[in-house]
Amino acid sequence: MFAPVYFDHNATTPLDPVVREAMLPYLGERFGNASARHEYGRNTRRALDLAREQVATAVGAEPDEVVFVSGGSEANNLFLKGTAARLPPGLLAVSAAEHPSVLRPAAQLARQGWDVRHLAPAADGRLARDDWQATLALRPALVSVMLANNETGVLQDVAALAAQACSAGAIFHTDAVQALGRVPLNFRELNAAGVGAMTISGHKIGGPQGAAALIRDRRIDIEPQISGGGQEGGLRSGTENIAALVGFGLACERAVARRAEGAAHLDAMRRRLESALADLGATVFGAPDGRLPNTSYFALPGIDGETLVARLDRAGFAVASGSACSSNDHGPSATLLAMGVDADLARGAVRVSLGTGNTERQIDDFVFALKAMALNLRRLGAVALSG
Amino acid sequence: MFAPVYFDHNATTPLDPVVREAMLPYLGERFGNASARHEYGRNTRRALDLAREQVATAVGAEPDEVVFVSGGSEANNLFLKGTAARLPPGLLAVSAAEHPSVLRPAAQLARQGWDVRHLAPAADGRLARDDWQATLALRPALVSVMLANNETGVLQDVAALAAQACSAGAIFHTDAVQALGRVPLNFRELNAAGVGAMTISGHKIGGPQGAAALIRDRRIDIEPQISGGGQEGGLRSGTENIAALVGFGLACERAVARRAEGAAHLDAMRRRLESALADLGATVFGAPDGRLPNTSYFALPGIDGETLVARLDRAGFAVASGSACSSNDHGPSATLLAMGVDADLARGAVRVSLGTGNTERQIDDFVFALKAMALNLRRLGAVALSG
Ligand SMILES: Cc1ncc(COP(=O)(O)O)c(C=O)c1O
Ligand SMILES: Cc1ncc(COP(=O)(O)O)c(C=O)c1O
Repeated sequence: MFAPVYFDHNATTPLDPVVREAMLPYLGERFGNASARHEYGRNTRRALDLAREQVATAVGAEPDEVVFVSGGSEANNLFLKGTAARLPPGLLAVSAAEHPSVLRPAAQLARQGWDVRHLAPAADGRLARDDWQATLALRPALVSVMLANNETGVLQDVAALAAQACSAGAIFHTDAVQALGRVPLNFRELNAAGVGAMTISGHKIGGPQGAAALIRDRRIDIEPQISGGGQEGGLRSGTENIAALVGFGLACERAVARRAEGAAHLDAMRRRLESALADLGATVFGAPDGRLPNTSYFALPGIDGETLVARLDRAGFAVASGSACSSNDHGPSATLLAMGVDADLARGAVRVSLGTGNTERQIDDFVFALKAMALNLRRLGAVALSG
Repeated sequence: MFAPVYFDHNATTPLDPVVREAMLPYLGERFGNASARHEYGRNTRRALDLAREQVATAVGAEPDEVVFVSGGSEANNLFLKGTAARLPPGLLAVSAAEHPSVLRPAAQLARQGWDVRHLAPAADGRLARDDWQATLALRPALVSVMLANNETGVLQDVAALAAQACSAGAIFHTDAVQALGRVPLNFRELNAAGVGAMTISGHKIGGPQGAAALIRDRRIDIEPQISGGGQEGGLRSGTENIAALVGFGLACERAVARRAEGAAHLDAMRRRLESALADLGATVFGAPDGRLPNTSYFALPGIDGETLVARLDRAGFAVASGSACSSNDHGPSATLLAMGVDADLARGAVRVSLGTGNTERQIDDFVFALKAMALNLRRLGAVALSG
């Protein structure tokens, strides 16, 4: 089988073969319901406990701060809706560049009486300072600002933001789905600074789809969104997906243990890519020095992003045009528009998100292909314009 | 490894090896985000579409009536909370023997202004006719009655109930998690009778944990409980768990195709077991002729259920005492108490739930072990009483 080069790791990652190996017994003879009081149940319970410890250790949390859920979207919904349900309606502030799984719940809360404010980003993708200060002055009850943006890779100084939000009386949440395994991440430190809860997920770090967690300060009152048998300390009911959680636990451990080494390799590849992009006249979006080591979100002026993604696909390169976490993106990226990027340029946006399995050779091949396409598409564009 | 005999299929089933085989590529080279617009994304999208068709075909529904979720608990919560959110608060009627993932959401809705009525079962576990009629006279807005009970295996005549509820103006939901693959199940027919939505799940039918569905009439207005990227027609956001859904699709297909043959085998084993139980003086709970072919819920008078389960476990038989879907059961089964079973007898309840992989030989071994334990425990009990 012909395998295209995979440059879409912010959408999902291939399953780490070591993680896969650890999962397989739980798709075989080690099946069981972790609540059952027999040999099968105890085996799966032990596996679940170990997974919880692995996740906790990897992110500097306590096992009882980990709430296992099925995905990052669920964790974000659980935090926002679950916390809001236990508070009188007030002000909820979320950054304008949040993932839809934060923005949509916020919109649902708006219909339930919450005031929702979208924190404006500056041109570099970081929060605009004046809007942030103005929002704090309004004393938000809840604030959610992502640690690393899935499209641009831009990092926010979440510890500093949380400290200020906390002083202003807010409960602060951060979506760290794209940060885990790519930048240092320690819930103990973030929590000390004022972060109350944090979302992480398995399938962005070499783990399986179907497993994620909300890491949360146990003092925060959260209404369960899936209630029933009382699993996960009553916060998330349902028979646990053991194989996926076993994989998630090990993936967290491995992603964090190998992060520094991986980041160096990712950063080297990204530099190589971005210097070639500069030669091509591309704009790379977001702060040059405050981004994930694996993400380049760029546009070639005059070239449509969707078209480029389709051509790259045919040439054997899997990249993304929009956030690629959503099944119905339309129009230019809302994140880029919020950053003040011109709509025409934003329509050219293409995201390359690298994984540690990628190679410099693949970057060179990609640049070679991209150059030829850019030349060709610009010529066509010129013909169309002059025609 | 010594493998105990597994008699707890209502809690979870071993993964069908054919299903496992079909899942493995999606834990390997066939990874991808089903929303991505490249080769990897299209491959996973095709797999997802096929899984949806398999599920739909297996239960007599249309693909666009299938909403994939992470588990039966999530599906029940989605229906109850999601439908209630789009209605003015009114009367919600649920059978008293529902799974906690129906009872707890109902309790949450009660705190939001809904009237909640628990439909009383008769002694045989079926709904008590008078209470049912009295409830209909109150014109409930929502009704949820499970097709097959997870503890007793008792079946309800859901088509007839739905028709009456529908005439009384209610939207009717049935939890068919334990029914799928064990009794005939056709959403088209149930829907024609008045069933608006139905919950099914993968890990009770030889499929993986982490995949389930709410099958629903598209005319029912449902507020998404996990919102975000807009997957599943906007009703359930989050990157799809492809491997689990591939497994779920095939498991549905196989469970339904092999149901009749399997049911005959299950029924024969269950008869053998229950005739031996009768000899031991056991009470088998629930209607003798209207139960799942695989479930025997019984008590030996004077013998504690927990104790028996623990001894059976040591002897190499994995059975359940409570509903075993819950991590915090305390006291005698609420289902049995609602059926009017004496609390002392209810405390003796043990559930044997068979799978098609079980054998008559295993039943005989079990009966042999049970007889010896009963004798022994009764002697101890007699000593304790006389001592
Ligand atoms: C920043 C961020 N948050 C949340 C999510 C949601 O994760 P999932 O789609 O697995 O639920 C994603 C990706 O999809 C993401 O990139
Ligand atoms: C009847 C019934 N409904 C719902 C569920 C919930 O399924 P899950 O725990 O997989 O979410 C179960 C079993 O656990 C069940 O037996």
